[in-house]
Amino acid sequence: MKSKTSEMRVAGKDYQSLWFDPGKPDRIFVIDQKKLPFEFCIEELRTVEEIYNAIRGMMVRGAPVIGAVAAWGLYLAAYGHHDETSLRAYLTDVSGFLLGARPTAVNLKNAIEYQMEGISDVPEKEIPGVLLERANTYVSKEVAACREIGLNGLRLIREMAEEKRGKPVNILTHCNAGWLACVDYGTALAPCYMAAREGIPVHVWVDETRPRNQGSLLTAWELREEGIDCTVIADNTGGYLMQQGMVDLVIVGSDRTTRRGDTANKTGTYLKALAARESRIPFYVALPTSSLDPDLYDGIHDIPIEERDENEVLFMSGKYRDRTVEVRVAAEGVRAVNYGFDVTPAGLITGLITERGIVRPDEEEIGKLLNNS
Amino acid sequence: MKSKTSEMRVAGKDYQSLWFDPGKPDRIFVIDQKKLPFEFCIEELRTVEEIYNAIRGMMVRGAPVIGAVAAWGLYLAAYGHHDETSLRAYLTDVSGFLLGARPTAVNLKNAIEYQMEGISDVPEKEIPGVLLERANTYVSKEVAACREIGLNGLRLIREMAEEKRGKPVNILTHCNAGWLACVDYGTALAPCYMAAREGIPVHVWVDETRPRNQGSLLTAWELREEGIDCTVIADNTGGYLMQQGMVDLVIVGSDRTTRRGDTANKTGTYLKALAARESRIPFYVALPTSSLDPDLYDGIHDIPIEERDENEVLFMSGKYRDRTVEVRVAAEGVRAVNYGFDVTPAGLITGLITERGIVRPDEEEIGKLLNNS
Repeated sequence: MKSKTSEMRVAGKDYQSLWFDPGKPDRIFVIDQKKLPFEFCIEELRTVEEIYNAIRGMMVRGAPVIGAVAAWGLYLAAYGHHDETSLRAYLTDVSGFLLGARPTAVNLKNAIEYQMEGISDVPEKEIPGVLLERANTYVSKEVAACREIGLNGLRLIREMAEEKRGKPVNILTHCNAGWLACVDYGTALAPCYMAAREGIPVHVWVDETRPRNQGSLLTAWELREEGIDCTVIADNTGGYLMQQGMVDLVIVGSDRTTRRGDTANKTGTYLKALAARESRIPFYVALPTSSLDPDLYDGIHDIPIEERDENEVLFMSGKYRDRTVEVRVAAEGVRAVNYGFDVTPAGLITGLITERGIVRPDEEEIGKLLNNS
Repeated sequence: MKSKTSEMRVAGKDYQSLWFDPGKPDRIFVIDQKKLPFEFCIEELRTVEEIYNAIRGMMVRGAPVIGAVAAWGLYLAAYGHHDETSLRAYLTDVSGFLLGARPTAVNLKNAIEYQMEGISDVPEKEIPGVLLERANTYVSKEVAACREIGLNGLRLIREMAEEKRGKPVNILTHCNAGWLACVDYGTALAPCYMAAREGIPVHVWVDETRPRNQGSLLTAWELREEGIDCTVIADNTGGYLMQQGMVDLVIVGSDRTTRRGDTANKTGTYLKALAARESRIPFYVALPTSSLDPDLYDGIHDIPIEERDENEVLFMSGKYRDRTVEVRVAAEGVRAVNYGFDVTPAGLITGLITERGIVRPDEEEIGKLLNNS
């Protein structure tokens, strides 16, 4: 299924990671990110349960797209609501339910609040139509934001390319903050895509990103489909590469950035930020303003960090003879813990690449961004 | 096969990771570390090729045991030498060959030099006997060193246990620096074993240690067999745990420590050292003095870092339905790089736990250790 406005390629065709077909108003379409890169499957989501499970089970993952799916989820809930009870009360309950699907990405909360604010004064029978329109608007804004993030980040890469006089700019990224995570373009990867399209030579170091390997599975796949040079590395390797001068720039995404700039992102991001500071390598976080959380200040203590199933650490899913199997990669009888995110303090971040420009990660600059919305 | 002098348990029986049986003087016995923890297999090594392949292919891995196997390898080469050419010249060639098996662990070089020095003035017909005796001596000294490392590190853990008033001391380790890596006791794990035997409650955070997962496979298995509480984590997780006050102490091993204290160890060690400094957590390197390299000063520039096959990153070996299979864990058509080690600068290391005491990682202190040999 090709989206008319999409930009990113799969086997030469343009796609977004989520879309709505007005001719089939009871569902949305998503790319099943759990099956990538070994299978490319489109799934249809219709019910609130399907939306919840797609988020919680990581069929869709990445903070911006989680928000987008939730915005559509509220519309689908309203569209499918046919009994006599209050739709508004039902949607309030649905909001609470969806909010519990994953705790760390603030986009989920922001998207749900955006939808619920939009229907506060609307007669019940008009609610589905309003939610449909707002879901479309929300997603369009996110896509536009990612495009602007790409263009803003492109300036950084262009400057580095000039310094490197034709040699490739080596960009390290963690997890997947590409178009799969963001409907289109991506956050951390958007500047790479823009640079490549402008003919600037870039090479991306892709942290495999255990335990779920979103880097080696999703980011590497995205980059391969776009024809961008990349090399997968174990998460342990980035420090060495930085020590040896093999990284020019680090760009990562954000699941939640507090008003002073502390940023929760996929676990392991913080370690790369420490290594970047040590080797004086610029470390940028790319995020739409929908990933900002003005309610929180101290990210290390206050951002809720998702604890996921230990089996994501103890087992690993991979391709074996044309099918995907799970293999045990730890001694039997031992336990694991699986915190999904860590927090990079603002002090380790060179700048935030947002749709409204690149800003310093501090309360004043972030406050200006938020007031500018 | 039980070794009379061993200390570490497998299924309740005492083992060493390598032993020699005087009744079968043409071979040594090793535990096949590639098959652990899913299979416990003893292999016999007889020829120089078998010794080389066991080291290079990581049937035996861990700096101290690599040295021990090489010491035995020279004996086996001499024992099996029956033609008319010069044995001494042959052993010089064998030394060069074995030295190329893996580049980073200095113990390989130190063990080979120890053996070759021992035969410089010995008549050729006595060489096998001298190499046998010296291999035994070398290994006994290594085992004794690891025991002393354990006792020296135990003091640190005991102090922490007193501060924690009965709560477990949380120790984070990377890779496997246990008895498998060291014939007996281990380096980084030796203090944990000593503490547990003294009844001090310890809990070990085990970095899984991609790409080869020596942590989740070997360290977790060792600790389980010894009944020590442990939790496997993705390599990405240690930073978060330290930020949250869940780590009291980091202890890792060393493949090579320069005379100013820079330490090469399994890739990713450096990232944990950065996180430990940031959270003011003591970071110790446990090593026998056979892992010191007095010839090198600047570890970051001068320690040779092994680059291994990219398939160790792109594929993962694990247990699937009672057998071990390799699954692909990265998108097809992408490449990887696989640097096996990184270098932690001395400035990030709180202390070196050696068989001769705990010392600061600086040239003066390390010089005293070396002169004391």
